[in-house]
Amino acid sequence: MPKSVMNYCPQCGNKTESKIPDGDNCYRDVCEACDLIHYQNPRIISGCIPVWEDKVLLCKRAIQPRKGLWTLPAGFMELGETTEQAAVRETLEEAEAVVKTNELYAVFNLPHIDQVYTIYRAVLLKPEFSSGIESLDVQLFAENEIPWDELAFETMQLSLEYYFQDRKAGSFKFRSTDIEKPTVR
Amino acid sequence: MPKSVMNYCPQCGNKTESKIPDGDNCYRDVCEACDLIHYQNPRIISGCIPVWEDKVLLCKRAIQPRKGLWTLPAGFMELGETTEQAAVRETLEEAEAVVKTNELYAVFNLPHIDQVYTIYRAVLLKPEFSSGIESLDVQLFAENEIPWDELAFETMQLSLEYYFQDRKAGSFKFRSTDIEKPTVR
Repeated sequence: MPKSVMNYCPQCGNKTESKIPDGDNCYRDVCEACDLIHYQNPRIISGCIPVWEDKVLLCKRAIQPRKGLWTLPAGFMELGETTEQAAVRETLEEAEAVVKTNELYAVFNLPHIDQVYTIYRAVLLKPEFSSGIESLDVQLFAENEIPWDELAFETMQLSLEYYFQDRKAGSFKFRSTDIEKPTVR
Repeated sequence: MPKSVMNYCPQCGNKTESKIPDGDNCYRDVCEACDLIHYQNPRIISGCIPVWEDKVLLCKRAIQPRKGLWTLPAGFMELGETTEQAAVRETLEEAEAVVKTNELYAVFNLPHIDQVYTIYRAVLLKPEFSSGIESLDVQLFAENEIPWDELAFETMQLSLEYYFQDRKAGSFKFRSTDIEKPTVR
């Protein structure tokens, strides 16, 4: 998702100015014509850990970034939906799989890229899935089959680590984790 | 925060078109000149329950919406910060109070207004606070003093209910709650 720079007011088309509005302490894109401040805020990516019996469903990415690497189904939350609905929708789109979510299991903050992840635990309603348009492949993996060296994102690696660790311990606990640095691969 | 309608590309100033891009299933604001899709996504509001001894710090809102009603300190998450940092910053801005956060305690989804709340448990480092520019008053309230009928938002009412309920039970558990309908007062 390329980030556009704000030069023009999206509402009226006049030039915007980057300035600190009265009573604020951050630079904002301001339209003097509309008297509007155009705020920019972090985005939420929502996904899940879809489970069938003792296996977890992963998708091989058909798109950049990290094309060819494996991920849990997840994507940008849309207007008008909840984080849970976004997770279910993304799983349907990327893995053509129907899940029922359990609880919100993990929240990750990635301030260097202005993203917050919400990851749910979920179960596949039936062992049926296939590659959505954004996936090259979709497969169920047992713990000893997880392609740890070919995971697309640190958020997914941590989600899977938490999941298998908690499953072994016999109880799942909510996690909130900050990932401060870019993942280097 | 007024919501601007997108008519013009913020990058180049040309007219945008509302259309469903190839491979997508939602209408987006598209700039044919820049070949850019301008996505819009829900926003995060982050805040905390600041506690000193057995009391909770609330702020009386000096701004709309819900001017004159009481709220936990919270506000829109900024680019480059974590939900936890946003909660601490908002408490400093609205209540001029310094807090140390405990865990992420509640997540609320409000899909009808495209908002997700993240609320932390927190402790005041010292019992010092005063009204920031967005507050008319800031006060500590014991449980039996909470102005339940003068709370600004359902998210704050629920956060306080969860907090006092869990405190009584002797252990705090993470909550994730959807608020589907607008609060009517």
